[in-house]
Amino acid sequence: MTSSNARAEADFMRLAIEQSAQALEAGNMPFGAALVRDGALLLLAQNNQVTERDPMGHAEVVLLRNACTNGGPGFARGATVYASGEPCAMCTGAMFWAGVQRVVFAATQADIIAALGGPALPIRTAEVLAGAEPGLVVEGGVQRAAAVAVLERFARRARGAS
Amino acid sequence: MTSSNARAEADFMRLAIEQSAQALEAGNMPFGAALVRDGALLLLAQNNQVTERDPMGHAEVVLLRNACTNGGPGFARGATVYASGEPCAMCTGAMFWAGVQRVVFAATQADIIAALGGPALPIRTAEVLAGAEPGLVVEGGVQRAAAVAVLERFARRARGAS
Repeated sequence: MTSSNARAEADFMRLAIEQSAQALEAGNMPFGAALVRDGALLLLAQNNQVTERDPMGHAEVVLLRNACTNGGPGFARGATVYASGEPCAMCTGAMFWAGVQRVVFAATQADIIAALGGPALPIRTAEVLAGAEPGLVVEGGVQRAAAVAVLERFARRARGAS
Repeated sequence: MTSSNARAEADFMRLAIEQSAQALEAGNMPFGAALVRDGALLLLAQNNQVTERDPMGHAEVVLLRNACTNGGPGFARGATVYASGEPCAMCTGAMFWAGVQRVVFAATQADIIAALGGPALPIRTAEVLAGAEPGLVVEGGVQRAAAVAVLERFARRARGAS
């Protein structure tokens, strides 16, 4: 990776984490995601489970729905998803079926469960993809501290201690 | 289980498999699902990936979207999903987040991959749910032959041999 690529990668993750902070401010669960192909940002999305009253409104699912609506069913094919939190089984499956080629996440499943509590689907992204054909590249822990800080802000507010 | 319960269970699965056959006739992937609570049928749905140009349009996701749209985010809570094919990771995660309590499927992941080929996400429903809190009850292989017959009809047509 060239240094300009590395800078772009860091920017994409920063944007995904910014989306997670915006989701928190909007009253949703604190997660965000970015869709990138060939080094170009295609879409950003944030969790909308609370405001849309949709248990499936995770950031990655919202991102892929928007991708299909805006660009057709192949829009995410070959793309990379940057996610502020490690994608759950639902989101991982959605990325697989949409043809996403690579996923980069910040906070891990364990970080998310530790910060938020509640219902937990702890299987890891890479485990969901075991044996998948075609496979996806999975990279984790990028800018983890920044993403965890948003999760912890959410948790403090949920405890009424904001 | 009483015999009338067993009859009702068989009927729900028959309806899910009927939906899979209707999906096939509509030009979609051959999968269907039923949502049941307290012995009452709430909703039926079928795959709409092709007609809706939506890679996430699996029968269970369509079912749960309809559940949320019609009855709000808690509509599927405590319910049972009958699926003509073993739910993939995406659908299993969606059921988890929607609060589904039990899933019964007919054709297994191996049956589906053997019949359809193509991209494969082979992780099994129960594996996706390992460590999930709360857990879901998973039962498989119910009316498997009837569901596999629909998958094989799809495969024959895809080969141009219908």
